[in-house]
Amino acid sequence: MELYLIRHGIAAERETYTNDEERPLTNKGRYKTSKVAKQLYQRGLRFDLILTSPLVRAKETAAILKDVGLSNRVEEFPSLAPDGDIYTWVNWLELARENNRVESSLALVGHQPDLGNWAEILVWGKSREKFVLKKAGLIGLHIPETKTLLSQSELFLLTAPKWLI
Amino acid sequence: MELYLIRHGIAAERETYTNDEERPLTNKGRYKTSKVAKQLYQRGLRFDLILTSPLVRAKETAAILKDVGLSNRVEEFPSLAPDGDIYTWVNWLELARENNRVESSLALVGHQPDLGNWAEILVWGKSREKFVLKKAGLIGLHIPETKTLLSQSELFLLTAPKWLI
Repeated sequence: MELYLIRHGIAAERETYTNDEERPLTNKGRYKTSKVAKQLYQRGLRFDLILTSPLVRAKETAAILKDVGLSNRVEEFPSLAPDGDIYTWVNWLELARENNRVESSLALVGHQPDLGNWAEILVWGKSREKFVLKKAGLIGLHIPETKTLLSQSELFLLTAPKWLI
Repeated sequence: MELYLIRHGIAAERETYTNDEERPLTNKGRYKTSKVAKQLYQRGLRFDLILTSPLVRAKETAAILKDVGLSNRVEEFPSLAPDGDIYTWVNWLELARENNRVESSLALVGHQPDLGNWAEILVWGKSREKFVLKKAGLIGLHIPETKTLLSQSELFLLTAPKWLI
């Protein structure tokens, strides 16, 4: 099974919003995210499901991914918000696979440094914050069929928009 | 400084050559490698120097990278051959930086699983063989200005040709 960790696109500056959760993508953010999404679609990528952080900039990113055809299912997942707990969604995924809700490909839309840290934990069991993940960039992992994902996954993709569009 | 680890393109089958070192790229290998190289060039990538494994399939890959304009310098480096020792080229790089032979960007053309292992060692200090690097794919690392590269580098790129071309 393939797991994609996708960082939200460029969002409005922190200073311009009192509530960080409400910062939307900028025009440039929407444009670049849309270009990335179209490239991924053209290369044949599809997701059984997109789970997104409930923050506006992540939800807007997930909506763009859905709109280009990468998936027809998007759901909010609270623990994908900043500082979320990897075990919450890993446990959810275990159940989702048992119930065949997710079969071959899942995308999570969220934030740094969480996504990079999670990828390191999935591959090596712990994070040293050594993954550079740009906005609208993505990480791709092969995750095993067994229940234990942590420190069992393989990294096959880590890229920024500049290498895709 | 940026370090790129580039795997050689698709080569002739092992069975067709008595000497593994002499296997050349196939037509498809040359075509895909050339497309990857042109995409990297168009995205602004340049190398101060390309060091290549002395095996034919690696030397041909390095020549393609040079021919599209990614660098004007290619040198053979024996310890980039399969099962080469990371310390040989890491020590070489330390001297090369002191002498300003390499300033901002170095590419190594070589083989799996060595390249993936070396990347893991540069990032985490040891390898668990968890990086999937396809033929003509590449890994990009930020390496520190200090002498100690091992377990100090950051990963910013790992990609297969399919995401580039």
